Amino acid sequence: MDYRAVALPIGRLLILISAFMILPASADLLANNPDWKAFLISAVIIGCFGSLATAAWNGSGLALRRRETFLFVNMAWIAFCTAGAIPLYTSGLNLSFTDAFFESVSGLTTTGSTILTHLDTMPPGILLWRSLLQWIGGIGIVVVGIWLLPGLRVGGSQLFAIESSENTAKPYGRIEPFMRRLLTLYATLTVTCILLYIACGMNLFQAINHAMTTVSTGGYSTSDSSFGQFSGNAVYWVSIVFMLGSSVPFLFLIRMIEGREGNDTYQVFWLLGIVAAASLVIFLSQRWVQHDNPMHLLTMAVFHVVSVITTTGYAATDYLLWGPFVICIFFLLTFIGGCSGSTSGGFKIFRIVLLLGFILALLRRMVFPHRVLTPRYANKPISPSVVEGVLVFGILYAGTFAVFAVIYGFFGLNLETALSASITALANVGPGVGDIIGPSGTFKPLPDPVKWLLSMQMILGRLEIIAGLILFSPDFWLDE
Amino acid sequence: MDYRAVALPIGRLLILISAFMILPASADLLANNPDWKAFLISAVIIGCFGSLATAAWNGSGLALRRRETFLFVNMAWIAFCTAGAIPLYTSGLNLSFTDAFFESVSGLTTTGSTILTHLDTMPPGILLWRSLLQWIGGIGIVVVGIWLLPGLRVGGSQLFAIESSENTAKPYGRIEPFMRRLLTLYATLTVTCILLYIACGMNLFQAINHAMTTVSTGGYSTSDSSFGQFSGNAVYWVSIVFMLGSSVPFLFLIRMIEGREGNDTYQVFWLLGIVAAASLVIFLSQRWVQHDNPMHLLTMAVFHVVSVITTTGYAATDYLLWGPFVICIFFLLTFIGGCSGSTSGGFKIFRIVLLLGFILALLRRMVFPHRVLTPRYANKPISPSVVEGVLVFGILYAGTFAVFAVIYGFFGLNLETALSASITALANVGPGVGDIIGPSGTFKPLPDPVKWLLSMQMILGRLEIIAGLILFSPDFWLDE
Repeated sequence: MDYRAVALPIGRLLILISAFMILPASADLLANNPDWKAFLISAVIIGCFGSLATAAWNGSGLALRRRETFLFVNMAWIAFCTAGAIPLYTSGLNLSFTDAFFESVSGLTTTGSTILTHLDTMPPGILLWRSLLQWIGGIGIVVVGIWLLPGLRVGGSQLFAIESSENTAKPYGRIEPFMRRLLTLYATLTVTCILLYIACGMNLFQAINHAMTTVSTGGYSTSDSSFGQFSGNAVYWVSIVFMLGSSVPFLFLIRMIEGREGNDTYQVFWLLGIVAAASLVIFLSQRWVQHDNPMHLLTMAVFHVVSVITTTGYAATDYLLWGPFVICIFFLLTFIGGCSGSTSGGFKIFRIVLLLGFILALLRRMVFPHRVLTPRYANKPISPSVVEGVLVFGILYAGTFAVFAVIYGFFGLNLETALSASITALANVGPGVGDIIGPSGTFKPLPDPVKWLLSMQMILGRLEIIAGLILFSPDFWLDE
Repeated sequence: MDYRAVALPIGRLLILISAFMILPASADLLANNPDWKAFLISAVIIGCFGSLATAAWNGSGLALRRRETFLFVNMAWIAFCTAGAIPLYTSGLNLSFTDAFFESVSGLTTTGSTILTHLDTMPPGILLWRSLLQWIGGIGIVVVGIWLLPGLRVGGSQLFAIESSENTAKPYGRIEPFMRRLLTLYATLTVTCILLYIACGMNLFQAINHAMTTVSTGGYSTSDSSFGQFSGNAVYWVSIVFMLGSSVPFLFLIRMIEGREGNDTYQVFWLLGIVAAASLVIFLSQRWVQHDNPMHLLTMAVFHVVSVITTTGYAATDYLLWGPFVICIFFLLTFIGGCSGSTSGGFKIFRIVLLLGFILALLRRMVFPHRVLTPRYANKPISPSVVEGVLVFGILYAGTFAVFAVIYGFFGLNLETALSASITALANVGPGVGDIIGPSGTFKPLPDPVKWLLSMQMILGRLEIIAGLILFSPDFWLDE
């Protein structure tokens, strides 16, 4: 294991994140809030750390091999989350380090669970920093999901490895050309979203913050009432379009712009199909009982379905009041999640489609045992290693969910809170169910060890579990 | 599909179950309770049905092939459960057919959830019939688990297929010699258990009923206070020994008696290890807070651990009052279940051990991608089809649990009740968590559709899910 090869890129990333701290520092300086010092001092400290690491090993020709890549993605998450927590900890909010770390992890993993209340009177620097954490986290997740995880064959994601024909960047190699297209896309989406939000009546600060947390499917807001602070249907439809845009594969978007076709169109169809079906069912069931304007009701139905399935977590009303039928649909949507290679979390649509197809094929083979079982996805045969990856991911997903929920029980959480905290962290959704962590509560009252474990689950969710679990395997630390 | 080949053995089984109805009829006749007519009339009707089916196709040389075997196990469950429900429905209890069917399914699947209260004043015929249902179900489950499911390659159970060297009975062939040994063992266990229960102070009626529900790991009792009606530690230790005896593989017991060794010793060690560890932790944690006699406390700890992990479901005290830490341990134990080829349900210990080993091996291969991954169980290499079977079982188990829980939510159950009802039915445990279906409640107040779905889940649990799911595959009904 070459630890220097891991330290070098992490040093570079620390310089990057410290540069971003200038933005909230400026915002607080403009607003005459003393927190600008917290951001500036944090930026200097983290920037120095990063520069030292970079200077020490720059140009030494170190390359990330397989094991170093695993260690790198884990360490990068921990380094980023720690760096993101420092200005929150040193700011005027008087947060414990546990709370600051939790908020930072929840931001960078674009989960959107929060321990803060009274957002409406919060200094602008803190609000901007929370949105920036989600925005930076969002693009980081896409890069890791498209570039690193398929190369490491994590959870069946090798199915969507970039084809060598369309990109010269190989895993563990240079990724600059590909990164440039990706960043351009992300920046364009964000700027377009800002402009449309302004056109729909948001002020500039609201538009910047919400655009950053929309395109990252993060869900942090500048108000305790989340999207409930905005009126009119237009702003919701803008949000719907951009949340959906960020939960389809970014490669699909790039290919669509460049007029090519890949193997990921299939999941986009499924995503849109599920959104349409769930929204229609909720709309019709609520039309029966609510005497609301039909257009507004439809907007609310689609908005909350999209917010949950894309794992964004915005809320405009307390949708848990819509009755058990609707709660059940939202609970199912939480498990599904968006597409692979996007900013959204969850189990991922391609895995569900692939698993359903595989189980149907398996039932067929049980009836006709002499037939050969050819697993297929999108009508094309796929390699057994992909199926194995998805099956193992399913087991680990269920196991991680259950084991953490049981541990939360040990710390005195009731069953409902324990289960929904576990799934909302692992799937990177945000709000849970119940009085404490529901859409109208916060994670603040939970015991500190639970907050640390939830932080671990959020990061595990982003590493598709197995890329994080591998660090606990004794073999990982053995020399070859 | 040859439906006559399925109807013939079901006809024979119906004659068998109608013969058993003579016992509760006699008990009620002795106790001068009019229910004896309900049992006698049910016996005549069901016996006639069975005789007709047997007479029509007897001696015609029909054999169960693969698909007929699947259809047979499903139809046998439905026929048995319906037959078992008829005397409950026609008795003086005034049950709806839904409730009678639920109670019959819960008995035959040895789950032990009940819709009845005031058991202490119940006529003896009904009590005896409930115990008989569990006793008959228990041996039926062992036969299906040892003889049919491994041959059908369901859920990795082919790992424990009877070796041809030690038995001439082939799947789909004659099983008489093997059945004789199995029935002798089951009867011996039951009679020994009756005698020991009497020695520990039970009366004859209590001893017969509890012995039948102990060796079948069923958990029905003759009193609302379950085992709480008995005092002294000895009776609990008898129960512990026989519950454990019935949740190790029956083939292991037969081999042990005959002085041979098989590949199932491994799961027995794990079972005993988990029981010892869980009991010790609970004992020590309770010793800290309760000022009970240490021997009694230890007895209670071991008794409840064994009752839950073997999916029996007896309770002596409301163990949910022992605090969240203990509840979490019990919740985990519910998921684990006993050994394959026994009367206990749940996920099964061999699958958990096999999955943990497989995931460790997989992590190793992720670190060293050029190594060959050889899945092992009990230090012997196993076929990939076993691993695949276990992985798919895990996915289906989690999926069935979640989908049914969501549907229960549709019917207005709160999250805690919905989740625990779903798992307690699928794992064939018995009591759930919460006010309604907890150890001190009953399933009576649940809506009728939920009772039907729970019945379906209990049967699915006994068919290792996939053997029941296969009927919903269109291929199953196609001609080859």
